Amino acid sequence: MSSAAERFYGVIPAGGVGSRLWPLSRADAPKFLHDLTGSGRTLLRSTWERLAPLAGPDRIMVVTGRAHRAAVEEQLPELADRNIVLEAAPRDSTVAIGLAAAILARREPDVIIGSFAADHVITDENVFRATVAQAIEAADAGLIATIGIHPTEPAIGFGYIHCAGALEIAGAPDALAVGSFVEKPDLATAQAYLADGGYLWNAGMFIARADRLLEEIGRFDSGLRTRLEELAAAWDDQATRGPAVDRLWPQLRKIAIDYAVAEPAAAAGRLAVIPGRFGWDDVGDFASVAKLKSGGRASDLSILGENARVLADASSGIVVSQSDRIISLIGVHDIVVVDTPDALLVTTTENAQRVKNVVDALKLSGRDEVL
Amino acid sequence: MSSAAERFYGVIPAGGVGSRLWPLSRADAPKFLHDLTGSGRTLLRSTWERLAPLAGPDRIMVVTGRAHRAAVEEQLPELADRNIVLEAAPRDSTVAIGLAAAILARREPDVIIGSFAADHVITDENVFRATVAQAIEAADAGLIATIGIHPTEPAIGFGYIHCAGALEIAGAPDALAVGSFVEKPDLATAQAYLADGGYLWNAGMFIARADRLLEEIGRFDSGLRTRLEELAAAWDDQATRGPAVDRLWPQLRKIAIDYAVAEPAAAAGRLAVIPGRFGWDDVGDFASVAKLKSGGRASDLSILGENARVLADASSGIVVSQSDRIISLIGVHDIVVVDTPDALLVTTTENAQRVKNVVDALKLSGRDEVL
Repeated sequence: MSSAAERFYGVIPAGGVGSRLWPLSRADAPKFLHDLTGSGRTLLRSTWERLAPLAGPDRIMVVTGRAHRAAVEEQLPELADRNIVLEAAPRDSTVAIGLAAAILARREPDVIIGSFAADHVITDENVFRATVAQAIEAADAGLIATIGIHPTEPAIGFGYIHCAGALEIAGAPDALAVGSFVEKPDLATAQAYLADGGYLWNAGMFIARADRLLEEIGRFDSGLRTRLEELAAAWDDQATRGPAVDRLWPQLRKIAIDYAVAEPAAAAGRLAVIPGRFGWDDVGDFASVAKLKSGGRASDLSILGENARVLADASSGIVVSQSDRIISLIGVHDIVVVDTPDALLVTTTENAQRVKNVVDALKLSGRDEVL
Repeated sequence: MSSAAERFYGVIPAGGVGSRLWPLSRADAPKFLHDLTGSGRTLLRSTWERLAPLAGPDRIMVVTGRAHRAAVEEQLPELADRNIVLEAAPRDSTVAIGLAAAILARREPDVIIGSFAADHVITDENVFRATVAQAIEAADAGLIATIGIHPTEPAIGFGYIHCAGALEIAGAPDALAVGSFVEKPDLATAQAYLADGGYLWNAGMFIARADRLLEEIGRFDSGLRTRLEELAAAWDDQATRGPAVDRLWPQLRKIAIDYAVAEPAAAAGRLAVIPGRFGWDDVGDFASVAKLKSGGRASDLSILGENARVLADASSGIVVSQSDRIISLIGVHDIVVVDTPDALLVTTTENAQRVKNVVDALKLSGRDEVL
């Protein structure tokens, strides 16, 4: 039997529009297809390049919507046809990751999968890979493994993982048991978590043997597991896949993997967390984008956009330009200006989380053409 | 001899880009061609409609740049061909008004002209016209008359007129002598002027017999008067106008009428001021536009633009839209957003005066295409 590391397969669920990043992120140009750091690469491409050294380019599967197939293939020319899983309609993370697990488990029964969002930013990639290596060992030991990020500030935009005692797993010296998952806290609670030291950010990274993951899904909802395995059995043959999707997809339950797998497994003592001391951000709103781009210097004005033409005087915050218009800022601080051909957003970093409300209002008023 | 009112001729100098209103105002779409109040009429059209009841539509002359001929004629279909004076190049207000005076004096030696900027906003038009009627009488008495606006706040964006004693002119009971003209003051000085009560805003309105105005110009610069009268002598014959313009225009001195006429006439006791108790604003920047549009309520968000599509949450200030893009504001206060096809401005009402600096910077960097 080959080593755990050799049996590793990367899974990248590439869904989610990123409403808080409207009007940059859209249904037809979701967050993972944007370069939000000015690196010259989209978040999806960066995710791929981060995983390729761990899994090898032939062992990364991408789960995405049918509408994004062409864009994903353009970003990832190395992606094998058999490794792109197209969702008939969005069904949340348990289906995205569970279907990948079921397909891969049929192809390779002892495969270990690691799922990483397509639209997060990670720095210190060597530390990231060393942490994943420990998670793979914990997964090989039969646990569902997650990676928790050491918080660097009392963030209120992330969920937290409350750590319990050490697990003492061979090859995963840092692995801890998980006490509980905690939803996004208020500021006072987040400050207490930071001071406590025993709380890590939930970065939504899950590493597990594919068969173990399916077992957890089955414990939570046996019908869902059955449907995912039926889909997987039909998947690799074009003749059977279509009918199976038509029949089964509408019945698939929409639920986040945190609720279906992580929380129950934690409660039952089958979840391990590996603390990660690398830079991580889910780039959830434009305040995050500004912070990432400026390296944390609040006095700066960050500019994103290949052809950005910005003239700024006594201003700070972020400008995202998708046009070649002249953008002029005078005396505006912590400002967020997002300039796209059909929609303009002006807000402040402090209000960045509220962008989702605008998207909701636009939906309600039927102005879907800009969403 | 006909009455002074019957000899009145309106003159509208329509020049000046309005740099502080960039990117709305441009070289090819100057301030006077915009509707800055949401009335549905451009400032030029409103100026015309304000003067027509006083002078009659056949007795209003417009002085503007060659580039604006078509736009002016579209705005003012009633304007007679002989009453549009096209400047070969901008030469400031003494030339614009002085040339009109010289042309009209040749046609009608005892004409009284009244010059009113094309891009100011006036409310209480009946009061305006009653004030002008007094100024016409003062002009007929041989004085250079101006109208000073009773200040309603300690504005620092306007020049002030320091009033002296009553003049006791028949038909102009409110006419006062002018002590001096004062440049734009600082806030403390403006507050002192407001408290004093003897200071009026200089609204740049001048009413005078055309021959008296030319006499004042001649006292200041006899060569300039000679050139204006030579131009006027050649003006009404197409065969002679062109050569005269080619020869004389480059020699015309650029100087504001305040310096060439108003200040020297005031110093010599030949200037009268009629206090005007009507609403007036020179709409010098977007803070003025916001104030005019909101009726002074700072908590409001004013929106200008026929097809404006604005979605605002907890925001105040002004949005000027020249596109049909969705403009979304979240939690921004006293904001100024001006959205045009090739340039976007984001600033605050407090910084509105600084917009001119951006225009200067764009000029310096050679980006004339957006100016």
